[in-house]
Amino acid sequence: MIDNETEPIEHPVCGSQVVLDLYECATPHLDDLEWVKRTLVDAARAAGATIVQTVFHKFAPWGISGVVVIAESHLAIHIWPENRYAAVDVFTCGENVRMDVASAHLKREFRAGRSNQRRFKRGDRIAAIREKSRSKSGSKATSAVEAAAHA
Amino acid sequence: MIDNETEPIEHPVCGSQVVLDLYECATPHLDDLEWVKRTLVDAARAAGATIVQTVFHKFAPWGISGVVVIAESHLAIHIWPENRYAAVDVFTCGENVRMDVASAHLKREFRAGRSNQRRFKRGDRIAAIREKSRSKSGSKATSAVEAAAHA
Repeated sequence: MIDNETEPIEHPVCGSQVVLDLYECATPHLDDLEWVKRTLVDAARAAGATIVQTVFHKFAPWGISGVVVIAESHLAIHIWPENRYAAVDVFTCGENVRMDVASAHLKREFRAGRSNQRRFKRGDRIAAIREKSRSKSGSKATSAVEAAAHA
Repeated sequence: MIDNETEPIEHPVCGSQVVLDLYECATPHLDDLEWVKRTLVDAARAAGATIVQTVFHKFAPWGISGVVVIAESHLAIHIWPENRYAAVDVFTCGENVRMDVASAHLKREFRAGRSNQRRFKRGDRIAAIREKSRSKSGSKATSAVEAAAHA
């Protein structure tokens, strides 16, 4: 199991993203649309996310793509059954979604022989602008962003 | 404009992903669902992608999430109008989708004051297994993957 390039989330940021590659998936359901949909939805629920909408598509002769839009952003999956490979994204804002729970759920259900996980911040420059704003004026957080946008 | 952490795609891989943060977006349409949908679909078309399905959602009081599922994977967007920030993902497999065209289209249409782009490979360990398989036996590319999955 490889679990690298984890970027610690130190500052308040807009979101964080987990990019998860699942290799050597031994589940027999890799090309089963209903199973994949249920498994991704279950992962979102297990992580504490609020599900808004789902979209799944089966390609011919094989392959599945799917997205679960959550109130806190999204989970996406693309599966290449012929390679026993699944590419997963978990993107969340806020601190209520337990991304690691979603990742662990998917690794287990897909019976991944190996995996590679990367985690990084999204929108961290907003946080930087906010910090700058606070240290300069103590005024409300978004003012510097708005001023910069209209400059 | 910041454009960093670009990882060169040297080997045959399953996919590649562009993670694009758009800051200080000056468009007045950041919370306009129809405009956002049209702009993301146009970006996909400009890049040469084949559109399969779209799902867009507007949050209350503001905020939009949307995904365009393409035959070559997906484009996703999450917008925080109050921060004038949009988080974009462009995930593609194959070599026919011009990701940089999609990125440039979105930067321009959102009138982003600043942006940050990261690009990385997905599924590159499949390529590594294939290379190993070829150098060992010259047999068909997927055999090593399948053997490993059932080991």
